[in-house]
Amino acid sequence: MDTGRLEAFSDGVLAIIITIMVLELKVPHGVDLGALWPLLPVAVSYLLSFVYLGIYWNNHHHMLHVTERVTGGMLWANLHLLFWLSLVPFVTAWMGENHFEQQPVALWGVVMLMAGVAYYILTVVLIRHHGPESALRAAVGSDFKGLISVVIYAVAILLSFANRWVSLALYVAVALMWLVPDRRIERSASTH
Amino acid sequence: MDTGRLEAFSDGVLAIIITIMVLELKVPHGVDLGALWPLLPVAVSYLLSFVYLGIYWNNHHHMLHVTERVTGGMLWANLHLLFWLSLVPFVTAWMGENHFEQQPVALWGVVMLMAGVAYYILTVVLIRHHGPESALRAAVGSDFKGLISVVIYAVAILLSFANRWVSLALYVAVALMWLVPDRRIERSASTH
Amino acid sequence: MDTGRLEAFSDGVLAIIITIMVLELKVPHGVDLGALWPLLPVAVSYLLSFVYLGIYWNNHHHMLHVTERVTGGMLWANLHLLFWLSLVPFVTAWMGENHFEQQPVALWGVVMLMAGVAYYILTVVLIRHHGPESALRAAVGSDFKGLISVVIYAVAILLSFANRWVSLALYVAVALMWLVPDRRIERSASTH
Amino acid sequence: MDTGRLEAFSDGVLAIIITIMVLELKVPHGVDLGALWPLLPVAVSYLLSFVYLGIYWNNHHHMLHVTERVTGGMLWANLHLLFWLSLVPFVTAWMGENHFEQQPVALWGVVMLMAGVAYYILTVVLIRHHGPESALRAAVGSDFKGLISVVIYAVAILLSFANRWVSLALYVAVALMWLVPDRRIERSASTH
Repeated sequence: MDTGRLEAFSDGVLAIIITIMVLELKVPHGVDLGALWPLLPVAVSYLLSFVYLGIYWNNHHHMLHVTERVTGGMLWANLHLLFWLSLVPFVTAWMGENHFEQQPVALWGVVMLMAGVAYYILTVVLIRHHGPESALRAAVGSDFKGLISVVIYAVAILLSFANRWVSLALYVAVALMWLVPDRRIERSASTH
Repeated sequence: MDTGRLEAFSDGVLAIIITIMVLELKVPHGVDLGALWPLLPVAVSYLLSFVYLGIYWNNHHHMLHVTERVTGGMLWANLHLLFWLSLVPFVTAWMGENHFEQQPVALWGVVMLMAGVAYYILTVVLIRHHGPESALRAAVGSDFKGLISVVIYAVAILLSFANRWVSLALYVAVALMWLVPDRRIERSASTH
Repeated sequence: MDTGRLEAFSDGVLAIIITIMVLELKVPHGVDLGALWPLLPVAVSYLLSFVYLGIYWNNHHHMLHVTERVTGGMLWANLHLLFWLSLVPFVTAWMGENHFEQQPVALWGVVMLMAGVAYYILTVVLIRHHGPESALRAAVGSDFKGLISVVIYAVAILLSFANRWVSLALYVAVALMWLVPDRRIERSASTH
Repeated sequence: MDTGRLEAFSDGVLAIIITIMVLELKVPHGVDLGALWPLLPVAVSYLLSFVYLGIYWNNHHHMLHVTERVTGGMLWANLHLLFWLSLVPFVTAWMGENHFEQQPVALWGVVMLMAGVAYYILTVVLIRHHGPESALRAAVGSDFKGLISVVIYAVAILLSFANRWVSLALYVAVALMWLVPDRRIERSASTH
């Protein structure tokens, strides 16, 4: 089996998740820009999650590009990832509507931590089926960035009890780390 | 005609169904995790339906993979299946918001029973057009798991009048039975 | 240009339209089946529109299958069709929630009439670019069913002022007429 | 990497954006056409944004058609465009529900201006990777229409403080300018 339909389904789910988040930007009744002011935390929260989902889509795109065949295990590892990502609109809205209170900030991190673990599991399942000499194995490498991200999420969740703005700064830092495109896979892919 | 667009459309509908279910997780007003507590039945209900829709997507993926041509009858058998699955978000929300009361639990089973019957009809239509010697026929076999699932749904619906938790346990049991990937088709497909 | 992306985009829009209609089935607060009773007109309205959108998707699928190239004019003729179909969830909900009152029933017919005209325009644009000797021309023929449908919609809209149930019967009759798959195109396509 | 998945994901997001806008057409409680009257500004606003999103989809379709390879930078330039377009349902609803008041009209223009800039950036990124002799470069040319559109948006935003109907007329003028299909790319593409 090839990866076409797995990619198409994941694209569909990610496109919907990214787009329904914007439904939380409830249209205000006022007619001046001041009426939009209370929406600012929701909008910032949306922007952060949009970037995260963009990162997931980009990395998913790169990784599936060097995947050669699909098994039942991969389908479920992928659905497991999509399950956690499907919760992103909920925790994004909860965090934004509550002006980045401590517990919503921590829960946003928990969902991202679980999504990070799910992505790691997907990586492991994919590599196991492609062998240590595969282009995929060479491209993904040790997935250092994936592991360090999960560690940072865990730290950010704990630190949220002390200072939730530090947690948010860590979430932004992880995003910036990933915004540098994953040159390992891109370089590897370009040689195939 | 090939199966490409049939798969793409089904993927789209399934991706949307799976994702709009999460809209039932209404963002609470409280700012602590306790405010999420009343959402637990809705979340459990969502998880159960997510797994079921994942199973449908996986099986649909496997079956269409060994399908060689598409007819008008198949398009309608597929739309019939999608119709019943489109009702899943509704019955999932009704079951979750009412804390697994008897009648919502029974109705969830009715929709799954109808979806199971629709899937069986799709299987029959597909096999009829591919002949008894086809890879599809060999792969799907007698579809024992599909038939037994429909029987279990019927039993669960009846038992819900006695004890709705037994019904839920049966729903979970069917999901576990399917989480084992359908090795028959996968094995068959891998030889093509 | 080939038709791939035109089909993919149309599939996406149709899949979303078909699925968001079900959001109008608002989850009731009651826990017994009696609480679902007031939803019956909404559900019947949903079923009718689901079948209509299924017919559009099927016919669109068949017609694009024998389309060989895409021009800017076709993209806009297709978007025009999607615009009218995007209004279907609105008129479906208005008709269902108002228990098939006269004016909602008439407006549902108006949107279907406009969609029918838009489909006819798309057919004309496609045929003009493929020539009188094309497989498409032979397959679509004179599009008698398309034209008679538009006439029936117009009659049903007018008759709704006298008896809205007659209008609904006509809507059902059109659906039944189309549920017979379009054998002209299928036969033609199978010879290519 | 080829452009397939980039197109599929963009199609998905655009299809969802275009379709969820219609959810702002809230079903009224009245049963006569008069009950729809208050929805007229929302419907006009929807029509304007539908046409704009159709234009974006068409141009995106044409441009990606002559794109030969995809890099990480392109994925992000594309996501940047989708981010601004994802805000269209929000500003469309705000503008429609407030009967084209000055500040909502201006904000609609701001989002379109940012989307126009994002599209221009995407064009630049694509051309940079394809070289001055590429079919893409020849097809896109100096993108005069793109630049003039952004200038008109800026003028319309400023003029909205004087007369918001002039701004709306400018928005409609830009749409009409684009409704003429982009013959440059189409002509170029047809020679490949």
